[in-house]
Amino acid sequence: MPASLRILGIDPGLGATGWGVLEIAGSRLIHIANGTIVSNARLAIARRLVEIEAGLLNVLACHAPDAVAVEQAFVARDAAAALKLGQARAIALLVAARAGLPVAEYAPNRIKKSVVGAGHADKKQIALMVEMLLPGARPGTEHAADALAIAICHAHSGGADERIAAALSRAGAVR
Amino acid sequence: MPASLRILGIDPGLGATGWGVLEIAGSRLIHIANGTIVSNARLAIARRLVEIEAGLLNVLACHAPDAVAVEQAFVARDAAAALKLGQARAIALLVAARAGLPVAEYAPNRIKKSVVGAGHADKKQIALMVEMLLPGARPGTEHAADALAIAICHAHSGGADERIAAALSRAGAVR
Repeated sequence: MPASLRILGIDPGLGATGWGVLEIAGSRLIHIANGTIVSNARLAIARRLVEIEAGLLNVLACHAPDAVAVEQAFVARDAAAALKLGQARAIALLVAARAGLPVAEYAPNRIKKSVVGAGHADKKQIALMVEMLLPGARPGTEHAADALAIAICHAHSGGADERIAAALSRAGAVR
Repeated sequence: MPASLRILGIDPGLGATGWGVLEIAGSRLIHIANGTIVSNARLAIARRLVEIEAGLLNVLACHAPDAVAVEQAFVARDAAAALKLGQARAIALLVAARAGLPVAEYAPNRIKKSVVGAGHADKKQIALMVEMLLPGARPGTEHAADALAIAICHAHSGGADERIAAALSRAGAVR
């Protein structure tokens, strides 16, 4: 049975989807990788969704996470923005669930609280805390920083314990 | 080169996704099949999206459409509804684009006008006209009737001509 657990955090967006992978090793968090999947704004939405899916499939193939955490749908400023966000988010949820990975969702405020210690924090504070909590992580974009924050939130989450246990036992069963 | 063109219309919804396939044979429209993919409301959204994807992949495999038409995102009544709709719609767009099929989108009013002759029509009128325009079609749900209406709209669409020509030439190239 592996002693560590890999968590993939995803910050979905039609234009830019951030992702970040960390490993829980005992009580330590280790940064593994992060990145941003940028879709080509000149293409039709259908093609952009295919690009996002391909990017996420590549992350799964390269980093083999045991669990996935996605930012919960915040209620967007308007219906049009919500629709776009919903489309990008659907791809993240689909790719994770299709791979048989447990998918956890966290509200934006919970993620901020978990990483910065307060429910309200700006992007800079989050990026700074992510680098403090994950030595060596240098997220290339704020989307990647957000994705690592989501993964940290999942690692810190008490509610994640059962999911971690389930993932470990499943991982133990197949490895 | 095939003399006919198959169009798959999709009416995406998280709970129920309607689909309908018709064939353009010269100036005639022939009903091929229709159905409704119902997702299990007890499952997490991620799993439901996987169900919708599997259902649509099955439709593609069984009915080999040459083109796909999807109802354009109407601005939903609120952001939460838009987000749900966006998620279901993303799966329809993804499955079609990933299969290399041309994807057309039509606004709800345009679909109604194309089928009923007026931009405002209720579900019953649409279902009735679908059965008139596609003899033998007995859509099992209003989602399936809407999906056939979307396919009819694509068949009637002047703008579809180039797409049809492109699809035919591509179909001719691979068959």
